[in-house]
Amino acid sequence: MKQKNKVFIATSLDGYIADRNGQIEWLLSIPNPENDDMGYKEFISGIDALIMGRNTFEVVCGFDEWYYEKHVFVLSNSLKAIPEKFRDKATLVKGDLKEVLAKIHEKGFHNLYIDGGKTIQSFLKEDLIDEMTITVIPYLLGGGISLFGDLMETLKFEAVNTKLFLNYIVQNQFVRKI
Amino acid sequence: MKQKNKVFIATSLDGYIADRNGQIEWLLSIPNPENDDMGYKEFISGIDALIMGRNTFEVVCGFDEWYYEKHVFVLSNSLKAIPEKFRDKATLVKGDLKEVLAKIHEKGFHNLYIDGGKTIQSFLKEDLIDEMTITVIPYLLGGGISLFGDLMETLKFEAVNTKLFLNYIVQNQFVRKI
Repeated sequence: MKQKNKVFIATSLDGYIADRNGQIEWLLSIPNPENDDMGYKEFISGIDALIMGRNTFEVVCGFDEWYYEKHVFVLSNSLKAIPEKFRDKATLVKGDLKEVLAKIHEKGFHNLYIDGGKTIQSFLKEDLIDEMTITVIPYLLGGGISLFGDLMETLKFEAVNTKLFLNYIVQNQFVRKI
Repeated sequence: MKQKNKVFIATSLDGYIADRNGQIEWLLSIPNPENDDMGYKEFISGIDALIMGRNTFEVVCGFDEWYYEKHVFVLSNSLKAIPEKFRDKATLVKGDLKEVLAKIHEKGFHNLYIDGGKTIQSFLKEDLIDEMTITVIPYLLGGGISLFGDLMETLKFEAVNTKLFLNYIVQNQFVRKI
């Protein structure tokens, strides 16, 4: 079975996933009168589980309701354990990424949603991302936390699809060039 | 007459216009078997003149043939004069950007192609860019010279068009939201 690691994320036009203060108010406040999900549900329906870092997990734990339908693997070397109330929904994983992936695949999860800036950068550093759907909020923030980081070598992707949403947002889809 | 300042530029997927060494070999070497100009000629036909910085101008001066059909304004506070052989093609301008623009408009040039990373950043810092066509070469370079820089405040654009070229390159067009 083909295993795939997929990214689905929004950035500003200048490539930031959060502003200078680490906040995403600029993203949450975009005009979206009919709550267009911009392909999110369709994307989620095609994945088996999520992998995210401790930061993203702790944000999600703070929400009133548990957010995800699919199982969440929390990638963290510092977190000791998943809080008891989330243990049916989330599993702690740590260590070498390829070994982590092998264990997750063994459990029957093959299409994985890789989420959170640091986690995505870790996966890219080991060339472990197969597909990226990037929704570009057309604002220049002028500073913040970048989606992409340093790499040891160039990674070539191919743009395979592009769509306009709400007459002002563009979403580009890329796949790793083999 | 409506005056517009337009950007037409290629970046890597991670937002770089040049690699870590300031080079664009990665851009010049992209597969393009039929030399698709990706809208360049059409864009150029809609502008009256270019504004670029000294760096870009000096690169262009080194080409075997003069590259541009339209007049070039070279924005530089350090350059003393345009070399004699280019004086019918290029004019030196310096000082405050709004004053520079007023002088260029007086000469009958209204639709301007703003080119070069530093020049584009200078214009964005004063909110003087109306339209941007950004051709995304889907490579992650992992470092280099960014198209966008620091800004004092968020600038909101709107995505108005998107196209795929050569089955792997995406070009997004943005206009400043009024």
